[in-house]
Amino acid sequence: MNWKFVLKILGRVSLVVAASMTLPLLCALIYREDPLPFLYSMGIILCVSLPLSFLPAEKHFSFREGFAAVGLIWLFIGVAGGLPFFFNGGGGFNTFVDCIFESSSGFTTTGATILTDIESLPNGILLWRAFTHWLGGMGVLVLATALLPSMGVRSQYLAQAESPGPVFSKLAPKQSQSSKILYSIYCAMTAVEVVLLKLAGMPWYDALVHAFSTAGTGGFSNRAASVGAYDSAVIDLIISVFMLLFSINFSLYFLILQRRVREALKSDELRFFLLVVALATVGVTAAALPVYGDLLRSLRYAFFQVSSIVSTTGFATADYVLWPQLAQFILILLMFMGACAGSTGGGIKSSRVLLLLRSIRREIRQISHPRLVEVVKLDGKVIPEETLRSVLVFIGCYFLILLGGGLIVSLDDVSFSVSFSAALTCLSNVGPGLQEIGPVGSFAAFSPLSKLVLSVCMIAGRLEIFPILILLAPSTWRRS
Amino acid sequence: MNWKFVLKILGRVSLVVAASMTLPLLCALIYREDPLPFLYSMGIILCVSLPLSFLPAEKHFSFREGFAAVGLIWLFIGVAGGLPFFFNGGGGFNTFVDCIFESSSGFTTTGATILTDIESLPNGILLWRAFTHWLGGMGVLVLATALLPSMGVRSQYLAQAESPGPVFSKLAPKQSQSSKILYSIYCAMTAVEVVLLKLAGMPWYDALVHAFSTAGTGGFSNRAASVGAYDSAVIDLIISVFMLLFSINFSLYFLILQRRVREALKSDELRFFLLVVALATVGVTAAALPVYGDLLRSLRYAFFQVSSIVSTTGFATADYVLWPQLAQFILILLMFMGACAGSTGGGIKSSRVLLLLRSIRREIRQISHPRLVEVVKLDGKVIPEETLRSVLVFIGCYFLILLGGGLIVSLDDVSFSVSFSAALTCLSNVGPGLQEIGPVGSFAAFSPLSKLVLSVCMIAGRLEIFPILILLAPSTWRRS
Repeated sequence: MNWKFVLKILGRVSLVVAASMTLPLLCALIYREDPLPFLYSMGIILCVSLPLSFLPAEKHFSFREGFAAVGLIWLFIGVAGGLPFFFNGGGGFNTFVDCIFESSSGFTTTGATILTDIESLPNGILLWRAFTHWLGGMGVLVLATALLPSMGVRSQYLAQAESPGPVFSKLAPKQSQSSKILYSIYCAMTAVEVVLLKLAGMPWYDALVHAFSTAGTGGFSNRAASVGAYDSAVIDLIISVFMLLFSINFSLYFLILQRRVREALKSDELRFFLLVVALATVGVTAAALPVYGDLLRSLRYAFFQVSSIVSTTGFATADYVLWPQLAQFILILLMFMGACAGSTGGGIKSSRVLLLLRSIRREIRQISHPRLVEVVKLDGKVIPEETLRSVLVFIGCYFLILLGGGLIVSLDDVSFSVSFSAALTCLSNVGPGLQEIGPVGSFAAFSPLSKLVLSVCMIAGRLEIFPILILLAPSTWRRS
Repeated sequence: MNWKFVLKILGRVSLVVAASMTLPLLCALIYREDPLPFLYSMGIILCVSLPLSFLPAEKHFSFREGFAAVGLIWLFIGVAGGLPFFFNGGGGFNTFVDCIFESSSGFTTTGATILTDIESLPNGILLWRAFTHWLGGMGVLVLATALLPSMGVRSQYLAQAESPGPVFSKLAPKQSQSSKILYSIYCAMTAVEVVLLKLAGMPWYDALVHAFSTAGTGGFSNRAASVGAYDSAVIDLIISVFMLLFSINFSLYFLILQRRVREALKSDELRFFLLVVALATVGVTAAALPVYGDLLRSLRYAFFQVSSIVSTTGFATADYVLWPQLAQFILILLMFMGACAGSTGGGIKSSRVLLLLRSIRREIRQISHPRLVEVVKLDGKVIPEETLRSVLVFIGCYFLILLGGGLIVSLDDVSFSVSFSAALTCLSNVGPGLQEIGPVGSFAAFSPLSKLVLSVCMIAGRLEIFPILILLAPSTWRRS
């Protein structure tokens, strides 16, 4: 491993993280809150990152170094992002582990919180919480490659390790160009949502927080009752639709910008995703009908919750823990699948689920016709066997990490529903789980060990496992 | 599809099932119980099977027909095996669906029961329940190929579809020979267990019931408190060891009979399986220590429960639902993995889990060395990529069916722990689940729909999914 290079990128990305704290700092100044938590944090991060970013540049690095660098950087920003919470102190942040949990939950766009009294925290801190969603959603490395001078021709390895999905789609020949296009679309969509939320009656500050959270498909709100606090059907609808929009592959928006709308709409993954959303909405609406007694109300809450969970955002307008178990089971299924590849959402990704289904179909056909050589296609293109193998190994690995994470959480002697759903919601970057960690619950009661393990699950889920697993391989730590 | 042929095999296998009812019939006569439930059942089955078994023989049939035949036959015997319960009536068998559930649970060696007052049932019926475990454990088609004149050179397709594991190992050139060898080992081991249990103080009848249940890794007992009713450390130990012995690949016993002991002990799967058993026993012993306060007692109950669950038997000497959640989570993990391939146990199988782990290791190495072509090995032999693909697709499919089954069970508005563990324990052919379906619980409260879906899950799990999935493929039902 070329550690010098990995540390140099770590330094550069940390610069971006430190710089991004100016936004909540400004917010704190506007609301006449204490700016010191941000100033201290920026100071500490700069002390680490400035020397590192002046390490000699190296143009050549391998795929493995890209993966390992991304894994390490995310573990680092999980810690660094928690500094403002730590220096703010109190309000639920009792230990530094709490701060790491909240920050990891932020950057990975999970939205699971250890807070119980959210409204008691300063506006600057709550904005930082939501802003970490926005930064982590599209990716801090993608942002770094967009903002900073080129880190070498192979910087696409970094974006590849950070971007979700089985197939990495390049929008432009140079990664820095691709990153700029992605962030432009991302900024524009976020801005539109802020304006719409303001028009629907939210204060500017709340609109910004919720737009950041929606864009990153995170789920942190500045209100304890989440989106339900506004009790507005229009706000519910805006956020529902934007949660879905942000969980669609961004390369489809790029196609639309190039006026290739038809091509975009033909995407197998998109169609499958929308089919799942439609079926789940029907199922949850029917299941929740006895609770609301009114089809339209039931549809409103069901559509919001389905969009929130499938996009892996985790906002709530109702406490689904009180819904019939069928509705909760459907939401758990959506947590597994999650959003589309190349979006800001988490989960296994709908394209992988689709490829699994097509692989099963092929397996059945092979029993009927053992000599037939059949391929698996997506969008009319043959998926190479290695990619398919990767997808299947990924799914297997996902379940293993889920069960391993749940096992450690079960040390806290919480019920199976809680330990399993905690690991699942963190690995899939959703946020809420079942029972006491439901939409109005909190992760505060977990042990520090569980909080750390769940933080690692969140990062493993956000990076789609392998950048974290590669850090565990002994060969990664050998001198090259 | 060559339906004539499929029906002919169905007829032949049903003959074996009808004939096997003579054992519980004799038992009923000895205990002066009503023999009519068995006589009626045998009559009905013979009415169906005799005409079918005289259909003209066909030597040639395809792999697909073998799979589809096995799937159909198992669905049929799930129903046929329930007839004695139905004609006995009462005692918990309130509807025919209950009888189908109990019979499917029996033949698939699951051991989940809808009974609540087991001791109230006649001895003949309880022996039939346990005997279905024994018949289903090694396989009714394997038995049919061993007992009946050859059904053509390709009868190995039938055994292959019925035998668990990613790789089908042939013990002898002819399938009928292989089947005879397997059943000889199986009978000998069962007989040894009966004698040992009698020596340890069990009455002959109880010894026979528990030996049948252990051999098939089923779990039906003639006592409501299961093996715990005897409260004997010696009986616990005998059954613990035999549960493990019956969950080891039978081809290893064949190797041992050929004095190739070393080769047998070198099996990767065996070593991995024993490692998991050892680790799980340590974990459960530690977790259950606060309950028993005594290391030796804790070890005794932990080892029994670990052996019971990993072998997918489901016997109980303690109600693990009252143990700390860590112990329960470990047992859930064991339910996923289950026994070794080529044994009478269920679950994903330890060789598949091992192959998944090795595939993950390869995937990580491929990131480090993208140009390296690496193979995955088992017992020193290269596993073909198609087999590996099959294993990974199988694991993905397992989780999909688990979640799909749980979804339907959740219609009964039971908690996530119950719906998930019900689907898991049935798919993995274990028996008990969590909370109200724990070791002293019952499946009686589920709706008929849930009971039918769980019955199909059991059969899908026993046949390792594809023989059931192929019945759902439209091409299977087209005329050839």
